[in-house]
Amino acid sequence: MDPLVTADDVAAAAQRVQGHVRRTPTIAGGADELGLPIGVTLKLELLQHTGSFKPRGAFNRILTALESGDVPGVGLVAASGGNHGAAVAYAAGRLGLHADVFVPSTSPVNKRHRIAALGADVYVIDGLYDDAQAAADERRHDTGALLVHPYEDRAIVAGQGTMAVELDGQLDGYDTLVVAAGGGGFVAGQAAWIGHRRRVVSVEPETSRCLHAALEHGGPVTVDVAGLAADSLGARRVGDVPWSIVGQFVDDAVLVSDRDIRSAQTTLWDAYRLVVEPGGAAALAGLRSGAYVPAPDERVVVVVCGSNCDPATVVEPLIR
Amino acid sequence: MDPLVTADDVAAAAQRVQGHVRRTPTIAGGADELGLPIGVTLKLELLQHTGSFKPRGAFNRILTALESGDVPGVGLVAASGGNHGAAVAYAAGRLGLHADVFVPSTSPVNKRHRIAALGADVYVIDGLYDDAQAAADERRHDTGALLVHPYEDRAIVAGQGTMAVELDGQLDGYDTLVVAAGGGGFVAGQAAWIGHRRRVVSVEPETSRCLHAALEHGGPVTVDVAGLAADSLGARRVGDVPWSIVGQFVDDAVLVSDRDIRSAQTTLWDAYRLVVEPGGAAALAGLRSGAYVPAPDERVVVVVCGSNCDPATVVEPLIR
Repeated sequence: MDPLVTADDVAAAAQRVQGHVRRTPTIAGGADELGLPIGVTLKLELLQHTGSFKPRGAFNRILTALESGDVPGVGLVAASGGNHGAAVAYAAGRLGLHADVFVPSTSPVNKRHRIAALGADVYVIDGLYDDAQAAADERRHDTGALLVHPYEDRAIVAGQGTMAVELDGQLDGYDTLVVAAGGGGFVAGQAAWIGHRRRVVSVEPETSRCLHAALEHGGPVTVDVAGLAADSLGARRVGDVPWSIVGQFVDDAVLVSDRDIRSAQTTLWDAYRLVVEPGGAAALAGLRSGAYVPAPDERVVVVVCGSNCDPATVVEPLIR
Repeated sequence: MDPLVTADDVAAAAQRVQGHVRRTPTIAGGADELGLPIGVTLKLELLQHTGSFKPRGAFNRILTALESGDVPGVGLVAASGGNHGAAVAYAAGRLGLHADVFVPSTSPVNKRHRIAALGADVYVIDGLYDDAQAAADERRHDTGALLVHPYEDRAIVAGQGTMAVELDGQLDGYDTLVVAAGGGGFVAGQAAWIGHRRRVVSVEPETSRCLHAALEHGGPVTVDVAGLAADSLGARRVGDVPWSIVGQFVDDAVLVSDRDIRSAQTTLWDAYRLVVEPGGAAALAGLRSGAYVPAPDERVVVVVCGSNCDPATVVEPLIR
C-alpha cells in the first residue's frame, strides 16, 4: 500500500500550522544523568500548547477543513483519553469554534477538567477510549459536526509530522528519532516526513502494543490495552492511515514495562525538572531499559511528548 | 567605582564552563497565555543542572581556583538557602571534590535533601542565610577549605553572566533582559556582559528588596527579608562585587508582591507545564503585574531561573 501521507503533505501542514503551534526547544541529554549508554538530544514537545504534541495534528485537521469550507456551524466533535481532547478544545477556542469532547470514564480527572477549562463541552462515557469514540461517531452522525479523529486521519497524521520538520531546522542532522506510539498517528507523521532518510524507532508499553503487534502480523490487529500509559498510548488497534506509513518506515518497534516508564519519569524530573506523563516518558524508557541499543556514535533524538499528569506522581520520595 | 567584573571576564567564564553547564533553551512566550501586553521570549534557565542558574557561577569559581592551584584537599565550603548549595554540591561531585554546605533552618527540606543526595555534607544552622554564611566562614577559617560564596565573588558573578553570552548565540538580538535579583550576583553577571548595549531590568519581591534599596540609597544597605521567595532571593544586602556592576548597568529595578509571584508560578504551569519556584517566577511577575511596562515593539527576554519547589504548590486547584 502506498503511504496515505507524504512528505509533501507534512511540509504543507508545517506551513499551515505555523503561528498556531509552538516551536518547542531541544536540550542536550547527558548519558550519565539520563542513565543512557550515550548522550542524546531531548525534543521537549511536552512544552507544546496544552502539554502534548496533539495541537499539531488538531490545527492541521481543523485549518484544512476551514480552507475547504467543511466546518459546520455546530462545530467539532472528538473522542480522547485526554491529550487529543485538550488539543481540539484549545484549537477550537483559538479559532472561534465549538467543540464537544467525549472522554472515557477511565481517563484522568485532571485531563477532563482541563478540556472543560479550555471551553469544550465534555461528555464522560462509561468504558475505554473505543467507547468514547463510538459515542463521538454517533454525535457526528446525529449533528453533522466535524469529527476530529486522534489518528485515523490524513490531516492529523500530517500535522503531527510537523515536529520532525521543525527538528530539521534545529539540529545539524541526526540519525535516529525515538518516539512513543499509541494509535500510531504521531510516529506515522514523523515517519512520513523522514522516510528512509533516518531511523525511526517506536516505543510502546508491553501492555499497549498495537503497533508492535501490527508489525509482527503484517497488518493492524486488535490488542488488549492496560497499564500506566494507557490513557495516552492505549489504542487497541493501529489506524489504517498510520499503518500505511509505519508499516514501511518504522525501523524498530520496541516495548517497555510500566516500571521502565515510571523510572524514566522520575529521572526526567530529577535531572531536568520536567513533569512528564507516562506516555511522554516512554521513548526515553525505550533507551534506558536497553530495549533499543544505539551505536556508540549514533546521533539520537528522544521525544518527550506529554506532561499531563499529577506532578506528585513523578517526584521521587526523597524530595517530596 | 569601576565594575569589578568586565565583559572579558564573562567571555572567559563562558569558555571555562563550556561542557560543564547546559545550554538552556528559549521558547516563545505568548502575550495572551502569559497575561502580558506583548509577546516575549522565555529563557528556560530552570532546565539548568540542579534546577537553577547557580552551576554557571559555581563551576567558574571552582574551575578558576583549580587552574591556579587554590583548592585544598579538604575541598569546598558554601552557605546557601538551597540552590547555590545544590550547585556547589553538583560541581564538586563532577570535579571529584568534597563539599560542606551550610543551610539555614528556614530553607526548604527538599532543597537540603537534594544537596545531600548530590554528595555534599549538609549542616543545618539555626536562623537565616546570614547565620549559615557565618558558620561557613568559620569552617573556612578552621579548615582552610575554599569558600564558594553565592554572590560576593568575581568568578561567581562572571560565571552567572555566561547565560547572557549564550542568549546572544540563540536570538537575533533583543532589547531588554528581565531577571530576578537576590544578592545581585545573577543580575550583575548579565549586566557585566550586556553593559549599556541592552536594557537590564531587575525584579525583586517587595519583602526582599536589597538591590532596589541600594539603588535608592546610592549604595548597599541592609534590609529585612521575608516572603514567598526568601529562600532564593532573600539576601539582606546586595554584594559589593555585584553592586560595582548593577549600580551603573541596571536600568530599572522593580518590585512584585507575593501574590504576583504565585500568580506567575501558576501561569507558567498552566500555559507551559513548567514547575517554577517563587524566585524563578519573579521576573515574569514583574511584567505580568505591570511593574515593568515594555514598549509595544520592545523585544523582551524573561528569565525563568529556578524550579526547586514542591510541584504541588504551583498546580492550580482545578487540576489537582
